[in-house]
Amino acid sequence: MNQEKVNELTRWMKAKKIDVAYVTNPNSIAYLSGFTSDPHERVMALFFSPNQDPFLFTPALEADTARQSNWPYDVVGYLDTQNPWQVIAEEITTRYGKPQQLAIEKSAFTLDRFEQLASYFPTTDFSNDLTTVIQQMQLRKTTAEIETLIEAGNWADVAFEVGFAAIKEGVTEAEIAAEIDYQLKRQGVSHMSFDTTVLVGAHAASPHGAPNQTTVKANELVLFDLGVIWKGYCSDATRTVAYKEPTAFQEKIYKIVLEAQLAAQAAVKPGITASELDKIARDIITDYGYGDAFNHRLGHGIGTSIHEFPSLVAGNDLVIEEGMCFSIEPGIYLPDQVGVRIEDCVYVTKDGCEALTKTPKELCIID
Amino acid sequence: MNQEKVNELTRWMKAKKIDVAYVTNPNSIAYLSGFTSDPHERVMALFFSPNQDPFLFTPALEADTARQSNWPYDVVGYLDTQNPWQVIAEEITTRYGKPQQLAIEKSAFTLDRFEQLASYFPTTDFSNDLTTVIQQMQLRKTTAEIETLIEAGNWADVAFEVGFAAIKEGVTEAEIAAEIDYQLKRQGVSHMSFDTTVLVGAHAASPHGAPNQTTVKANELVLFDLGVIWKGYCSDATRTVAYKEPTAFQEKIYKIVLEAQLAAQAAVKPGITASELDKIARDIITDYGYGDAFNHRLGHGIGTSIHEFPSLVAGNDLVIEEGMCFSIEPGIYLPDQVGVRIEDCVYVTKDGCEALTKTPKELCIID
Repeated sequence: MNQEKVNELTRWMKAKKIDVAYVTNPNSIAYLSGFTSDPHERVMALFFSPNQDPFLFTPALEADTARQSNWPYDVVGYLDTQNPWQVIAEEITTRYGKPQQLAIEKSAFTLDRFEQLASYFPTTDFSNDLTTVIQQMQLRKTTAEIETLIEAGNWADVAFEVGFAAIKEGVTEAEIAAEIDYQLKRQGVSHMSFDTTVLVGAHAASPHGAPNQTTVKANELVLFDLGVIWKGYCSDATRTVAYKEPTAFQEKIYKIVLEAQLAAQAAVKPGITASELDKIARDIITDYGYGDAFNHRLGHGIGTSIHEFPSLVAGNDLVIEEGMCFSIEPGIYLPDQVGVRIEDCVYVTKDGCEALTKTPKELCIID
Repeated sequence: MNQEKVNELTRWMKAKKIDVAYVTNPNSIAYLSGFTSDPHERVMALFFSPNQDPFLFTPALEADTARQSNWPYDVVGYLDTQNPWQVIAEEITTRYGKPQQLAIEKSAFTLDRFEQLASYFPTTDFSNDLTTVIQQMQLRKTTAEIETLIEAGNWADVAFEVGFAAIKEGVTEAEIAAEIDYQLKRQGVSHMSFDTTVLVGAHAASPHGAPNQTTVKANELVLFDLGVIWKGYCSDATRTVAYKEPTAFQEKIYKIVLEAQLAAQAAVKPGITASELDKIARDIITDYGYGDAFNHRLGHGIGTSIHEFPSLVAGNDLVIEEGMCFSIEPGIYLPDQVGVRIEDCVYVTKDGCEALTKTPKELCIID
């Protein structure tokens, strides 16, 4: 259990006079309780009350695993033949009494489930949203979290090594991606944090392109965007490399993206805003005449999920603080020509930042 | 676009006097529109009105891809800098007028998003739920859908072949699972339908266990639970095999599960109920004294998602009809001893059913 964060939640509940907090999102449950599970269509939940012990609610199938985890409090399991809402309502009422204020994660609670829950508590106020409270907690990572993010980043570096070694004339994007996943899984990484992306040549100009039967050819760039989930934390990094000598034009585009990436990364420190970082990278690319070809935000927060706060985007005046972790990933996408993106995730230190991935960013030429 | 299903939806809307139907679930959007995309945290939606043309709403990044798909109607894209709810409200009002009745998919709409949408339509009635309408449509598969499910099942058979061939003394569960995923990806299967499960010996007694560094040893059973996503449709099958001679006890447990699986599968035909099928398998296992060790429902529907209706569970009186597709997967789990599950998904024919996977179910002994 993450005692520090549970204390933070408890303080918030007391300040807001919340009787019960109902955590729904499996990521948030893992973050607070230490118990990781994907309940699929079944109901899983974590309940807190400011003055009494919390409890975990899981499908019966998972209850023993939860009890054997580091979660130190009660685990209530429910059978497929039981109505989970009735069990939840009874447990809440027995343990905590009828709540006046029950806070839920509105971003993770579907309307049908909310209607079920609310039907058992007709006089309860559900207007308080746990989403922002939990997002705020997750914004600044602890030292222990950063250590795990560094480990996750190391695995992304291993993945690049595997991917670069798999590049040869005629091999398909899908084959390289399969090789990366295979080698990491064999080494004990159970999940990639998203579908491993390998895109060759003009195919990399599609920012959401997926690996297909496109083959590696000499004098083409190959873009890798990948990451792993390691002890519940994600990595995410992008490198674009050349197979055999790049053309002068490919090299030119690469250098612009690299300049933008390095400039934004060098500017990260407590006190700067998210939108200022976006602008630093965007201005460089725009000055070279490719502003329209950088058609997405500069970056996103990372932690127990692959996309969290802060969002490095124009208009976001959020002030960067020590302990925040986010990606810096400018790109230039010219349809039918070339796609280049370079990405490191960083963690913010007292006076700057450190990258979570170490694979060099100077253009690597594979022979 | 799936014209037949859109017509079914339109008929329902007219009967219920629904002005606008708002489809949210990316699976449902793919099912009705033919456009498949994962919007991650962005908003994607599909709108229908009984007497006017539908339209698709996507992030700007996806709009061109959507226009190039087979979707024959308008695509509205929105930028990261726009408020999607405002754009949606304007598009709905301009195209269809202020709706009196707006039906949503309550099982896929989060409460925060619903509050945003509802704030633009303070006088609209949102009580009609599209979820059950779409679930009902998906319950009986068309001939074309069954053909695709058969193809997806064939890939599961390929995966078993790869997995069985990878079994040897000392290899880990994680290595076998990695090998299966790797070979299928190389052959063009872009996604497994869930994490490939390979569990050795007593580890298989955990019904939701995940592959780890447990190694294959002689005279142990190895459980494989796996499937692929193929052209948007899922497969899901389980086989338990022996490495070298099984013990008499392992063989006994296997035979009980097989008897239960075969009996339930043989009983499938239009007119029987979901709970009757569950009972047929459960009674056999209970009669042998292992009822408590079969601690989950008999099966679940399958289609564009891995778990859909019907649910084969005690208490579900749903009558089985031709065209339904579901798993039949009894198991016996004895902690610290043995875990056996055998699963085929089937499609219901006029007077029986056909399995979607063909890998033999007699106990296979790998030498």
